Amino acid sequence: MGTGTGVDSLTSTRRALAVLDCFAADAPALTLSEIARRLGRPVSSTHRQIKELVRWGALERDESGRYSIGLHLWEVGALAPRSKGLREAAVPFLEDLYEATHENVQVAILDGTEVVYVERLFGHHATRIIARPGTRLPLHATGVGRVLLAHAGPELVNEVLAGPLRRYTEYCTVDPRALRRELATVRRAGYAISDRQFELVSTSVAAPIRGAGNNVVAALSIIVPARDGTARGFVPAVVAAARGISRALGARLPRPADLPESY
Amino acid sequence: MGTGTGVDSLTSTRRALAVLDCFAADAPALTLSEIARRLGRPVSSTHRQIKELVRWGALERDESGRYSIGLHLWEVGALAPRSKGLREAAVPFLEDLYEATHENVQVAILDGTEVVYVERLFGHHATRIIARPGTRLPLHATGVGRVLLAHAGPELVNEVLAGPLRRYTEYCTVDPRALRRELATVRRAGYAISDRQFELVSTSVAAPIRGAGNNVVAALSIIVPARDGTARGFVPAVVAAARGISRALGARLPRPADLPESY
Repeated sequence: MGTGTGVDSLTSTRRALAVLDCFAADAPALTLSEIARRLGRPVSSTHRQIKELVRWGALERDESGRYSIGLHLWEVGALAPRSKGLREAAVPFLEDLYEATHENVQVAILDGTEVVYVERLFGHHATRIIARPGTRLPLHATGVGRVLLAHAGPELVNEVLAGPLRRYTEYCTVDPRALRRELATVRRAGYAISDRQFELVSTSVAAPIRGAGNNVVAALSIIVPARDGTARGFVPAVVAAARGISRALGARLPRPADLPESY
Repeated sequence: MGTGTGVDSLTSTRRALAVLDCFAADAPALTLSEIARRLGRPVSSTHRQIKELVRWGALERDESGRYSIGLHLWEVGALAPRSKGLREAAVPFLEDLYEATHENVQVAILDGTEVVYVERLFGHHATRIIARPGTRLPLHATGVGRVLLAHAGPELVNEVLAGPLRRYTEYCTVDPRALRRELATVRRAGYAISDRQFELVSTSVAAPIRGAGNNVVAALSIIVPARDGTARGFVPAVVAAARGISRALGARLPRPADLPESY
């Protein structure tokens, strides 16, 4: 031991990373003893590791002595190509869509069996929603998730359909066979409407974003109030914006099937 | 040794973090040997540490075998309160300013002797600029930097003025005494105009954002083309948006000094 690269020190790296995983959207600031308790580790050794993380800027200590994620970690994280390239292609189109609607507009990608929101624009009075950049939500109950799942490989679809599928609202499809039929419809239609499936107050309209290889790499959605039933009216704008982002990413899009040849 | 928390394993944590620092906006993807060379360390031990970082999601390996920052690190980084709270307060006002102008609008904070951009909105045809979220730029040559420096403590001002101050363009103020006078003007006026100081093609108009303690915690700016000399016309919109964000952050703003009592 003592080489700094043996099994024990790799465990140490893993433990340092585990400290970072203690933080979450609902736990943005933690005391030393809260972190040690979450890790099930002694306060003294946890403290030494936290000091290393603070030194580098992965954590910051506030005036009350609580720790939170540091600015340097955010900076380095902002380099992640999966987020950065997509964000740069998407923001101008998100701007257009926001400007035309003044509703929440967002882009999300698939990671594991969840969606992760990469960018979200919102105004002063947009529908209140919980997705912020970095938030993870389930595939089966969100508009972006249903689009991503509709275009995913059979292994992922089978894994998700095998459940458990949480029933977020009374409108949430959790029957695997019904969900499989709905995904086929999403794939054929080129968009998804997730009406009150995740929250009773909102409806999401989502469309696929394709990358340079023409594969679906992300999804765009708009969240509108559920009450007025006007969600369907947003489909053309959402589909057009998703196509714009796809082209900016280098996709070669087919002409829409339902347009006449002379269009 | 061998406890996983001794000096050697702390060194290991530090080395793992050093791997992350190899990545930058101009070096978003690196091979194993490039990383080892940058660190001045053997390929074999670097590889073991990279495997730990990949396992956690701090790094990702692409099809060509190159490594880049992983989505999980971005996700965790997005929890950084210094970025997150400001972003959530600022985005609706950035939206308004973007919608009214269709130019680049951004928010930046002070970190060390540099500015770090926290959020930026931009359209299809906005002036090309280099600042992306996470980008660091110098204080003396940018609009946001001059605002932040104008409101910084004397230690930081002295450190920055002691130089070296890079002369980015022929318009860039690098004489310490002249810069000190300009900072006093910025403080008194309540905004900064950085005309072609950083790039010859663009002018920045910036204003301070205050937090709950009424201290300047960030700066807002708009970047417009330098050629048409209309930058000054953006001052009221930028100052108003910065005041809106400040109020959203809990600042109690004084009434502007130059408005009559009956206003």
